[in-house]
Amino acid sequence: MPEYRTTVTWEGGKSCRLSADGRPDLAIGTPPEFGGPEGRWTPEECFIGSIAGCLVSTLLFFAERAKLTLSACTADGAGLMEKTSEGLRFTRVDVRIGVTVADHAEAERARGLRDRLERYCPVSASLRCPVSLELSATTAGETE
Amino acid sequence: MPEYRTTVTWEGGKSCRLSADGRPDLAIGTPPEFGGPEGRWTPEECFIGSIAGCLVSTLLFFAERAKLTLSACTADGAGLMEKTSEGLRFTRVDVRIGVTVADHAEAERARGLRDRLERYCPVSASLRCPVSLELSATTAGETE
Repeated sequence: MPEYRTTVTWEGGKSCRLSADGRPDLAIGTPPEFGGPEGRWTPEECFIGSIAGCLVSTLLFFAERAKLTLSACTADGAGLMEKTSEGLRFTRVDVRIGVTVADHAEAERARGLRDRLERYCPVSASLRCPVSLELSATTAGETE
Repeated sequence: MPEYRTTVTWEGGKSCRLSADGRPDLAIGTPPEFGGPEGRWTPEECFIGSIAGCLVSTLLFFAERAKLTLSACTADGAGLMEKTSEGLRFTRVDVRIGVTVADHAEAERARGLRDRLERYCPVSASLRCPVSLELSATTAGETE
């Protein structure tokens, strides 16, 4: 089964480089609110992005299998970090996925994929903190 | 407390764009072994990178508080994805951090930070899958 590897190299201060074989390097850093530099991806954003990105990958897989034709798909992810008695923790992650399909029948079928995403997305299923997932589907002529 | 937000926008095929306010967009995609394109960051790598990156951020925080002067720090993260009865899951994540410090006394103190990283890294503490963390410390004149 696949293994996923990355390397973090400290560059001084609160800045690092994130690298993986065959991928462009990514400048990352501690979040500015914890003393890090501005303008770099933070591990926290990579974490939320990995959850939203993996849910979208999972959606694309099931949509293809269901022969659903998407014309657009976006996912907004938000993760709340809070102080708990054990230290800083992500206490909830919300992901809202919106897809655009051809007609109402396809929209209904697209909405029906939600539970499979929750169950089969390997990243979100590997988390302890609750992930709240919304999946909305509209047709090309509609506005949400 | 801080909230971390990212957006995933599907670009066709198995390719997406990952964006966050004030950060450069990142081209991501389903892993090649699941039909995605070559050369893009995958959500799975972002996930492992977020864990390794957050552990390094946490280390930098505690090293500063302990007045430890690092001359180098790298972290290698690897996550194993396996088929389980519930579907694909990350069944283990291994992170090996190596730091270089000035002398043996500092190396000893650096190694002593390990348990605090495990306890206080907000990303790795938010996971259900086990994270195995190694922290080694060498002095500038040494090779590991």
